[in-house]
Amino acid sequence: MAAGGGDPVAELSALRQSIDNIDMALVAMLAERFRCTKAVGELKARYKMPPADPDREARQIARLRELARNARLDPDFAEKFLNFIIREVIRHHEAIARDDAAHADVARESAAVEARP
Amino acid sequence: MAAGGGDPVAELSALRQSIDNIDMALVAMLAERFRCTKAVGELKARYKMPPADPDREARQIARLRELARNARLDPDFAEKFLNFIIREVIRHHEAIARDDAAHADVARESAAVEARP
Repeated sequence: MAAGGGDPVAELSALRQSIDNIDMALVAMLAERFRCTKAVGELKARYKMPPADPDREARQIARLRELARNARLDPDFAEKFLNFIIREVIRHHEAIARDDAAHADVARESAAVEARP
Repeated sequence: MAAGGGDPVAELSALRQSIDNIDMALVAMLAERFRCTKAVGELKARYKMPPADPDREARQIARLRELARNARLDPDFAEKFLNFIIREVIRHHEAIARDDAAHADVARESAAVEARP
């Protein structure tokens, strides 16, 4: 966080520059996080692993709340934030599942066409 | 994002480690962002600047969508994310305003007590 030494307009502008830099980092981290969760989704689908893991989720929430406390961030907000992200991950996984189902339909259809006498 | 070379359990564990590292970075960035927005709120209150700035918000949204596109993150999600954060910032600012009002009440009350003959 940068401050601008007395002049309120300069100070506001310096703070906004910090906010914009942080937002750039947040977008990059979120993009990388979704790459990871996409890979997890594909891995679980390939190896028929259960999609949900309540123990892992409980550990993640407890850890995030602790990290938040150390960073002086409201732990309730950190938990809300994780739930917000997880909802998006589920939306992605549902979209992947729909795509897979659509591909399976097309495959079944062309198999049926090829099987015609 | 790290992958675990063939063994699905090792691969899942490696991906989860990446997710946990990213979450640590996200919490740190969020904590710093709220420090900045808190400073903005205090600055605006001190210098009687207007609390909302629709032009700034529109520029922030447009920029974040562009950053998201470059990082292969869904721009709609990036915008939802910014709105989620802004709602929390507003909640903080309202809490600061309530605190200020409460302090003003206490100040008025003790001034009244001291003003007694």
